[in-house]
Amino acid sequence: MKDNVNRPFSEDEKSGLYRAIFERRDVRSQFLPDPIPEDVLARLIEAAHHAPSVGFMQPWDFIAIDSVAVREQVLQIFEQENEKAAGNYQGDRQQTYRSLKLQGILESPINLCITCDRSRGGTHVLGRHSIVETDLFSTCLAVQNLWLAARAEGIGVGWVSILDQDKLAATLNLPEQVYPLAYLCLGYVSEFLPQPELQAKGWRSRLPLTELVHGNTWGQPVDNIALSEALKK
Amino acid sequence: MKDNVNRPFSEDEKSGLYRAIFERRDVRSQFLPDPIPEDVLARLIEAAHHAPSVGFMQPWDFIAIDSVAVREQVLQIFEQENEKAAGNYQGDRQQTYRSLKLQGILESPINLCITCDRSRGGTHVLGRHSIVETDLFSTCLAVQNLWLAARAEGIGVGWVSILDQDKLAATLNLPEQVYPLAYLCLGYVSEFLPQPELQAKGWRSRLPLTELVHGNTWGQPVDNIALSEALKK
Repeated sequence: MKDNVNRPFSEDEKSGLYRAIFERRDVRSQFLPDPIPEDVLARLIEAAHHAPSVGFMQPWDFIAIDSVAVREQVLQIFEQENEKAAGNYQGDRQQTYRSLKLQGILESPINLCITCDRSRGGTHVLGRHSIVETDLFSTCLAVQNLWLAARAEGIGVGWVSILDQDKLAATLNLPEQVYPLAYLCLGYVSEFLPQPELQAKGWRSRLPLTELVHGNTWGQPVDNIALSEALKK
Repeated sequence: MKDNVNRPFSEDEKSGLYRAIFERRDVRSQFLPDPIPEDVLARLIEAAHHAPSVGFMQPWDFIAIDSVAVREQVLQIFEQENEKAAGNYQGDRQQTYRSLKLQGILESPINLCITCDRSRGGTHVLGRHSIVETDLFSTCLAVQNLWLAARAEGIGVGWVSILDQDKLAATLNLPEQVYPLAYLCLGYVSEFLPQPELQAKGWRSRLPLTELVHGNTWGQPVDNIALSEALKK
């Protein structure tokens, strides 16, 4: 077992990890109705459960939502919030905003809410003394594990962030201390787009990486020339 | 390109992704001093940069810290905070706490602070209207991308969460609106442990997955028997 753990990744194994990272998309429009086999869904949740968590607190729970009635309620919450959000933009930008599809709540065969129980592990969770939000951060890491595993399985994931969290918590009957961190739509897709939809539609561009890397302190150039060059590729 | 994107993952490619997820560790004690080649480090940062972000805002920056002077200042901040944290435990539990190694700031060849610029993308970032913390959540997803890519490259990562964020921000000279979300230690390792250190040392156990999955709303059983069975494996 231990030897196996320490075996270097083969080129194909590395490629699988990098493909998942670079070819992952936030899916809204390409969902197929086909159900996800239970063993595959369990594997995705297991992947999320193996995320790192502060003090090994594992603050996450998973609510698997196939009920159309529950999803229709969530869709209503989305629509109310999205109407408010659209009001932030004017003219052409609002037109573009309204043309974007921002959720696939009913088109996807299953939704998954990943929550964060802020009281799990008791009062003194190791490593959480200085930054209390580390439980939320840990739950995000679980989301990304699931998102990447889904990509490797050919399953698209869309994170619906335009929701009133209090209303969502009420709909899902969450206890007071449980925060609905991520509301995800999951399903097989007709295709994964070659680039993020917001980039393809001209909403925003990918930032050049060289502008985002600093050396030792903020705003200082990276004084390692080989690293600077490698970041330009 | 597009066809390539939609090619199913081979078994080896899937295995690479799942190995990275299941064999990833939070490393503190096994760092080797060997430097990380610049092209590998650039690849890890590129992986982080391809995380999903709300409204494609890409709120992250990366501060690559090899300066021993800067790292010694960060270590001092850790030691102050860790002394306070240890005071939360009594008796045997405090003994165990003090025996745990919780950072590899100087032993690892390079530290990387991944920050979140809370003002990036202006006032109205698409999808961030309802939940303002989605910028922090996006940055966490970037952390996990980097962590998994590092694992595939044989590089260990340790997240140091026992830090006073204000002091850390001052040390790294961060602008007011930039939050130092994750302070990471990176380096090749003598070995990846077969299980999380906190589990191996009896600090806390992994929770049974079946207790963490709910059906449609909180506290309801999963009424799909095949899924329940699959979660037990």
